[in-house]
Order: sequence, then C-alpha cells, then structure tokens
Amino acid sequence: MASTEIEALTQALARLPGLGPRSARRAVLHLMKKRETSLMPLLRALEKVSQNLSVCAACGNVDTTDPCGICADGRRDSRLLCVVEEVSDLWALDRSRLFPGRFHVLGGRLSALEGIRPEDLGIDRLVGRVAAGGIDEVVLAMNATLEGQTTAHYLAERLERFPIRLTQLAHGLPVGGELDYLDEGTLAQALRARRPVQ
Amino acid sequence: MASTEIEALTQALARLPGLGPRSARRAVLHLMKKRETSLMPLLRALEKVSQNLSVCAACGNVDTTDPCGICADGRRDSRLLCVVEEVSDLWALDRSRLFPGRFHVLGGRLSALEGIRPEDLGIDRLVGRVAAGGIDEVVLAMNATLEGQTTAHYLAERLERFPIRLTQLAHGLPVGGELDYLDEGTLAQALRARRPVQ
Repeated sequence: MASTEIEALTQALARLPGLGPRSARRAVLHLMKKRETSLMPLLRALEKVSQNLSVCAACGNVDTTDPCGICADGRRDSRLLCVVEEVSDLWALDRSRLFPGRFHVLGGRLSALEGIRPEDLGIDRLVGRVAAGGIDEVVLAMNATLEGQTTAHYLAERLERFPIRLTQLAHGLPVGGELDYLDEGTLAQALRARRPVQ
Repeated sequence: MASTEIEALTQALARLPGLGPRSARRAVLHLMKKRETSLMPLLRALEKVSQNLSVCAACGNVDTTDPCGICADGRRDSRLLCVVEEVSDLWALDRSRLFPGRFHVLGGRLSALEGIRPEDLGIDRLVGRVAAGGIDEVVLAMNATLEGQTTAHYLAERLERFPIRLTQLAHGLPVGGELDYLDEGTLAQALRARRPVQ
C-alpha cells in the first residue's frame, strides 16, 4: 500500500550490500521521518558523488576526481606500488594509513571456476606501469585465498623480468588470533613462515 | 584519503538504522561501482520521495501524498480504526493486508521514564476522530510491552464514553513459538487467555 515512490526507494536501498528488504524499509521510514537531518544530506551527498564519479585512469580506484586522490597526492612515494584485487582492498589498506605508496587495482582475481583469465584483469596495464620505470618495489597484496595466491603467483612470473623488488603480504596468525580457533591452513602457514625470536 | 564527497556519503549512509561505518563504506563502494544500476536509481528515488514527502493530516502516516494512500483509499472500511504507536507499526500491519480499515498513529507511547505524557502523543486527535462519529470499532494495537499496554489502558479510559466497540490485539504464543524458548510473560499471557478447544 506504500506509494510507488516509497516502494522504489525501498528497492533501491534493498539492493545495497548489507541491507535486506526489512532493513531497507526501516531505513526508508527513518529517512522520511527525518527529512532534514537524514534524507536531504544523503540526497545531496549522492548528487555530488554521482556528478563527479570517476575511475582513476592510473590505478583503477573509484573517486570523485581523476586521477584519484591517492595518485594525485605528491607526498606519496611513487616508487612503491601495491597491487590489490579490488577497490575495496585498496580502501582497506589505505584506511590503515600504513602504506605510503600508490596502488594498482586488478579488478578481480584469476579464477578457472569463474572463467576469469589474465586478459580480463588489469594485468597488462600493471606490466605497462612497471615497464615504464620509476618503480622500485611492487607489493602483491592479494587475498590469502587460493585464487588470490594463484593470481599473485601469475603476477610474479609476469613481473620477474623487471629490475624491481617483488614482495607480498606476510601470512600467519592474525592479531588476537587464538590457535584453538584458527583454521589449519593459517596454522600451517604461520608454522612454515616461523621466524627467529629477536 | 577518500574525497570529502565520498566521506559525506559514507556518513549519511552510516546514520541509517542497520548500517554501521563498515557496511556504509561497502555500500558506497557498491554505489560507485554501479553508477547506472544502483547509484542513479537510488538518487532518483530519494529525489522523488524528498519532493513529495508528507505526513497525513488524518492518521499521521508518512507518505508521498496527503491524505496518505490508506486514508485516500475508498475501499477501506472507514468505520474500523486501528491505533498504533509508530508509523513502522502501521506499515507492519498494512503489509500483512489483514486489516481492512484505517489507522491512527500516536507517535509514541506513554512513558514515565522518558517523560512522555498524553499531551505529547496524538491522543486528543484520536479522541476527536472518534467523537466526530462514523467509527464502529477501535482496535488498540499497541506493542505488548509495559509502556504499550499502559498506553492502551489509558486510551481505553479516554474512549470508553463513546458508543464504539473497543478491542485490542490478542496476546499469546507467536506462530512457531516453542514453549521451551518463550519467556514467562508470554507463557503466562497465553495461559491466562486460554480458550476452549473447538
């Protein structure tokens, strides 16, 4: 019995990750009850982002500028390049503020199951960036999944002919990880990569 | 490092019920990656709702028309009035499509703790509607909470002088409720209101 406008808004919200039909309805009600403090700010923010939305031609990040804020930031170390699968991984690493270099988004991972081949990912662009020179180190920051690691392995082969340092994220116990609750794969990894106590 | 526009959108989404900072970020990323199928439909739906948003002068429902779709629906039984605490309750009952009458939203419940008194709720408007005549039955559909039931009790007193049937929702076992998992209050209620087997 809700109007078609309300129904359309509910459906648009329900398509967002993390929101189902029920929470979308609650969100719509919240928006309608708080027009000035909730609905209008969201509307204006969406307008601004929709008008300026762009994909960075250099790294593949989505931002409201091209080149993106990271690539345009002169304080970043351009000799350091971190390769990630998805934009969400870039954002996660960037939030940590631990990586001072730039990024390269592949747009996925190699997957025989899903039929994703090297030419479907931004791998040629990556090789081109490295071939262009000026990069000292490439950090492979793939997910610690089978497909992520297959991708990292493939990238390592493609990049080995360049005079760069090629590294990858360490694997092992996560912070706060309790042995009793961790999977065997993580334990095996942590044991294999064990290091001398300093 | 995200642009201020993206940050503003993330914060606007994070204020919605059911979304935290993390899921808001995921939602923003989803919106930015799917501009045409996700961001633009949401933007247009928000625009439409924001332009037409209104509170029904008759019942207190929020809708894109005033009177709201329910009050304007001539097929509804105007002699049947269901009183609810919040608009969300109205929507929940309306979704069930089981109630053929109209609604009255109080906008809350009596609460000594929160200092909510009868004059803070739409109770005088309710009494006015009933006093105006044309209503045969008022269904009190308050929540089965202490405050909801206090409110129902108060409303019953205010409405007893009118020649109407005054009813309230049944209390008891919810559908699928297993005795072993239900609270004592519900069990007590179900036992007290037990009915002969037919």
